[in-house]
Amino acid sequence: MEIGRENSCMIKMDEGLICIDRTLPVVSILGKKYTILILSLLGNDNTRNNFNDIANSIPGASRRIISMRLHELENEKIIEKNEGEITEYRLTDRGYAMRKAIVNLLEVILNFN
Amino acid sequence: MEIGRENSCMIKMDEGLICIDRTLPVVSILGKKYTILILSLLGNDNTRNNFNDIANSIPGASRRIISMRLHELENEKIIEKNEGEITEYRLTDRGYAMRKAIVNLLEVILNFN
Repeated sequence: MEIGRENSCMIKMDEGLICIDRTLPVVSILGKKYTILILSLLGNDNTRNNFNDIANSIPGASRRIISMRLHELENEKIIEKNEGEITEYRLTDRGYAMRKAIVNLLEVILNFN
Repeated sequence: MEIGRENSCMIKMDEGLICIDRTLPVVSILGKKYTILILSLLGNDNTRNNFNDIANSIPGASRRIISMRLHELENEKIIEKNEGEITEYRLTDRGYAMRKAIVNLLEVILNFN
């Protein structure tokens, strides 16, 4: 038992405690640059998107970092890559569940006044 | 009208479009290191926390970065600082609204299997 970690990851909720291991890749990805935008954009219209669609939707973003992020999201089965004539990305079921919660969070923020 | 930005920030939802300006400080803070953990931890038991409580809850974290993050969150009125005998931090109403949406997102992630 890792006392340090156990003590560090308690988040109290109505229904009890949840334990966040911030070293979990999926938790770690969440806090990385562009993750929230990529997931939000990829779910638009349930469409697939190729790399340029994604990169062009985030002007000024580093294409290298977007590429890293897509790779990490694919590793965590949050998005999937279809390699046909054009390589396209789309959200998995996990990805859609995450996007829904992310959009909800963005709405909370945008309602700040 | 900034076409580039407008094109870049469309997120389609059931109820229409939302437009995310990723240069908004509060959107930018969301993707920074420790933000999600700090907000999650600060809401525990509705208590106030001093700097050491927060830093000790995230072992291995850089105290300098936690300090920067607290400052940014305070600037965005997501947390407030009470300077008494001990300087303490707590969530504002904004902060509680954000924490609720964040915890919901973390639950989605933790339910991945």
